[in-house]
Amino acid sequence: MSTPAVPRGSGRDAITRAARESFAERGYHGSSIRDIAARAGLSLSALYHWHSSKQDLLAALIEESTEEYFRRCDEALRDAGDDPADRLAALVRATVEYRISRQVESTIAAAEWRNLEPGNRERLDGMRAAASRLWADLVEDGVARGAFRCEHPGDARRAVVAACNAIAQWYEPGYEPGYEHDRGLAVPDLVDRYTAIALRIVDCS
Amino acid sequence: MSTPAVPRGSGRDAITRAARESFAERGYHGSSIRDIAARAGLSLSALYHWHSSKQDLLAALIEESTEEYFRRCDEALRDAGDDPADRLAALVRATVEYRISRQVESTIAAAEWRNLEPGNRERLDGMRAAASRLWADLVEDGVARGAFRCEHPGDARRAVVAACNAIAQWYEPGYEPGYEHDRGLAVPDLVDRYTAIALRIVDCS
Repeated sequence: MSTPAVPRGSGRDAITRAARESFAERGYHGSSIRDIAARAGLSLSALYHWHSSKQDLLAALIEESTEEYFRRCDEALRDAGDDPADRLAALVRATVEYRISRQVESTIAAAEWRNLEPGNRERLDGMRAAASRLWADLVEDGVARGAFRCEHPGDARRAVVAACNAIAQWYEPGYEPGYEHDRGLAVPDLVDRYTAIALRIVDCS
Repeated sequence: MSTPAVPRGSGRDAITRAARESFAERGYHGSSIRDIAARAGLSLSALYHWHSSKQDLLAALIEESTEEYFRRCDEALRDAGDDPADRLAALVRATVEYRISRQVESTIAAAEWRNLEPGNRERLDGMRAAASRLWADLVEDGVARGAFRCEHPGDARRAVVAACNAIAQWYEPGYEPGYEHDRGLAVPDLVDRYTAIALRIVDCS
């Protein structure tokens, strides 16, 4: 098999960027591997050097961003100490920052998860469940220690995660002041607001 | 133009069902008008009698369900009286019940909104904004009257709506007891839980 003319690193990156762009604009079923190669400035055979199919590209994109989300959450919790409220604040911060910095990937994962084929889906469901477990352990621990008073930890967790995740849908960096000016709020302020909301949801005062 | 062999009412319904099924399974770009006609048991020309394009089908589907959501919210508020907490509870109930009874349409609207063409999108953005305005007025009124103490009504509203909307993503009617058994919780219990969460988010006691 001949090696493509582009250096491996930049070829891979160009493909990732092109796939992200195409999936975001046209969705998985509306994207073609030929179009992704053209956007990346590569021949089809160069693309196939790295990815065997459109499915493989989708799975790689979702896998990379899901892994990064888990890593950020895990790191945030390791630095957060033992207090349940501090730990919740750390996880909210990691999630809000992730949803803003990886807004496109967040939207693709939400819309295209159903298009993962069984093997990929199972693996990625497992990764997502691991991140979900971090949230669940944290909320259950806070309840067990009397720091959180919410009666239904599972629903409290889902509500907090849903509120943070939805940021990817409405956030617009640099949004002009006016009605709904907080659509473009600075990230640290957004983190503070969502931390306050999360603490109210788990009923911690 | 010849009239198709099927009665108008059932033909329309069959098309709507087929489009919903196809968009849910394969997404907008992955669905073809030919496949939708076949699923509906109609000829392509019979389908074109009612809908001029796949875009028209998508817009009609989202329009019908968005209108129904607005109507349910509006009715719930008209029956709810004047108390801000009661009004919030009414809107939460309408939203939770809607997300469960129209779970498929909710998922299609979330995933395919971006595929609406400019004219349809503008019209449907307007409908969505009207529903959003019901929420915003309610939360702002509660804050103005001192019933809700949340500092940032816009974020409180988005968090409540996101938590209720996410139900469409995880709810599984009849889910078996076990870890996460509340995935299949009876609707009235779910309404109670999300009402309590919403009241905490807006900081109402």
